[in-house]
Amino acid sequence: MNNHTPPFDSSAFRRALGMFATGVTIVTARAGDGTPVGMTANSFNSVSLDPPMVLWSLAKSARSLPVFHAAEHWNVHILANEQNDLANRFARAGEDKFAGLSLEPALADAPFLAGCSARFQCRTVFRYEGGDHIIFVGEVVGFDRSEMAPLLYVSGEYALATRLASPIATEVTGAADASAEPAPFTEQLLGYLLGRAHYQFMWGFRRTLDELGISHGEFFVLSLLAVRAALDADQITAHTAYTGIAADTALLSAMRARGLLSASADPAPRYALSPAGHAASRRVLAAAHAVEAALVEQLGGREAAGLRNLLKHLIRASDPGLPTLWGASA
Amino acid sequence: MNNHTPPFDSSAFRRALGMFATGVTIVTARAGDGTPVGMTANSFNSVSLDPPMVLWSLAKSARSLPVFHAAEHWNVHILANEQNDLANRFARAGEDKFAGLSLEPALADAPFLAGCSARFQCRTVFRYEGGDHIIFVGEVVGFDRSEMAPLLYVSGEYALATRLASPIATEVTGAADASAEPAPFTEQLLGYLLGRAHYQFMWGFRRTLDELGISHGEFFVLSLLAVRAALDADQITAHTAYTGIAADTALLSAMRARGLLSASADPAPRYALSPAGHAASRRVLAAAHAVEAALVEQLGGREAAGLRNLLKHLIRASDPGLPTLWGASA
Repeated sequence: MNNHTPPFDSSAFRRALGMFATGVTIVTARAGDGTPVGMTANSFNSVSLDPPMVLWSLAKSARSLPVFHAAEHWNVHILANEQNDLANRFARAGEDKFAGLSLEPALADAPFLAGCSARFQCRTVFRYEGGDHIIFVGEVVGFDRSEMAPLLYVSGEYALATRLASPIATEVTGAADASAEPAPFTEQLLGYLLGRAHYQFMWGFRRTLDELGISHGEFFVLSLLAVRAALDADQITAHTAYTGIAADTALLSAMRARGLLSASADPAPRYALSPAGHAASRRVLAAAHAVEAALVEQLGGREAAGLRNLLKHLIRASDPGLPTLWGASA
Repeated sequence: MNNHTPPFDSSAFRRALGMFATGVTIVTARAGDGTPVGMTANSFNSVSLDPPMVLWSLAKSARSLPVFHAAEHWNVHILANEQNDLANRFARAGEDKFAGLSLEPALADAPFLAGCSARFQCRTVFRYEGGDHIIFVGEVVGFDRSEMAPLLYVSGEYALATRLASPIATEVTGAADASAEPAPFTEQLLGYLLGRAHYQFMWGFRRTLDELGISHGEFFVLSLLAVRAALDADQITAHTAYTGIAADTALLSAMRARGLLSASADPAPRYALSPAGHAASRRVLAAAHAVEAALVEQLGGREAAGLRNLLKHLIRASDPGLPTLWGASA
């Protein structure tokens, strides 16, 4: 797998560089005539703590090079994970990148963007030769940070960072079992981890379900009808059959008899939550939200955002063709 | 939240710099007497594509500064997510960092480590002043990359990168439902995402369960006993009760009657898989592994590793005190 000059494969070089993960920054300055300039850059890094210095590199071919060359000050904005649209905007040439953005007061004249994970206000101290780029080294004259999780750039794609976890079982021993065959079922199996995480989450509000006398299947129906009103039995089945837990007409009739559901006239009744059903649904959802809040508190917001993100990937990858739950009516 | 000199809060400055995510590298060189040196650095970045150049910064106080100053060549290793121990080893001073490491042949004399996400073999072209650091700029004379997901460093902690996902529902509309109250149940709820992901995963091998006539509860018992032999009913319940799916003596007796389990003598029989139970367990696990393999293929290895990582965080955070499944006997 060794690539060696000559000849130098520059797209392979880019791919190899892409394995070094970075944050995403926007660097801004202001031209002598007051025009703001800015661009997305991931070539930023720290240099020195005392004096505080950072660096970034700008292509010699960049249209904004003369402005950055002449500017005494520039600001570096470490973008938050919700600012990927802003990153795209400042990565493109030729549009008014600052349109609609509200700038904040800064120490010098360089534009100062809001909503970032961290910001560094800098004064140029060195400009160094760097091949087809100029390396700008700035002394940091002001900085701030927020609790916003940063946006990442890895292998040419935006990404989120999630803290490395240690193994779940802390008392792993070599061969506790008599069986000599290699265990095909390990804690690395996503299916196991998903099931355990799901049931542990449910366990956190099972007492509420038990108090209300609501079964697992009834919980699914209550949750579904809290989001999508007036579905018939076939539609309800289409939403829930993949769980393997029956939400059939018998269950629906029983929930109706208990006063949790109302239904339009036969022969194809459409079900909706009754006032009692709404009340039960709200109690269950409040309990679920309490479990969620406690977990997010323990995980940290960054990890929770990363987990949601990956579960959505997996759900899309494994979707058996479920009808849309939120959004347009079925 | 604005911090501004003077006075300069250097620990706050470090925290703000930590919001810029980076990969983790080990940079190596060799002293004139043949002694290898190396250190963990996250100050690496790309500089130039033509000619190919990269940079990193080394503290003027570093013991290895004279070696790097004198060395014509150095190698940068972008560490993979499984190399966090190596990162820690090369971040500490005063031990033989290279002990036990097998080095690979390189173009020049600098040590060349294995198992990385990417590697750059460099020749120093510039050494620049950078406050309390020296900025080394090298021309890349060789490089390679692997498919290993890179290790990240964010806010002082090692991390994994996971690609940003777009929303699950693609046809979101403003207010499709008649209800005016804000929906408390959204696709941002981890509990929903976990349940949906779990059941979609299970759905992928439900046909196998159906063919074998194995219920959800029986599946749990088969999986548990495949890992931990000879548990009594109380121990089995301790492992499975949190799911809310009964794995009680009635279920165990039925599985024994069907020939899936063997049991030691009463009054407190210990259950184990019979040969038929082992065969059923292997078929189910093979089907689960096939689902897993297809999902990992679609998600990508990096996302799958990130998802496992986060599920382990969540499982630890929400563990109701389950007995250890793998490892030491209960």
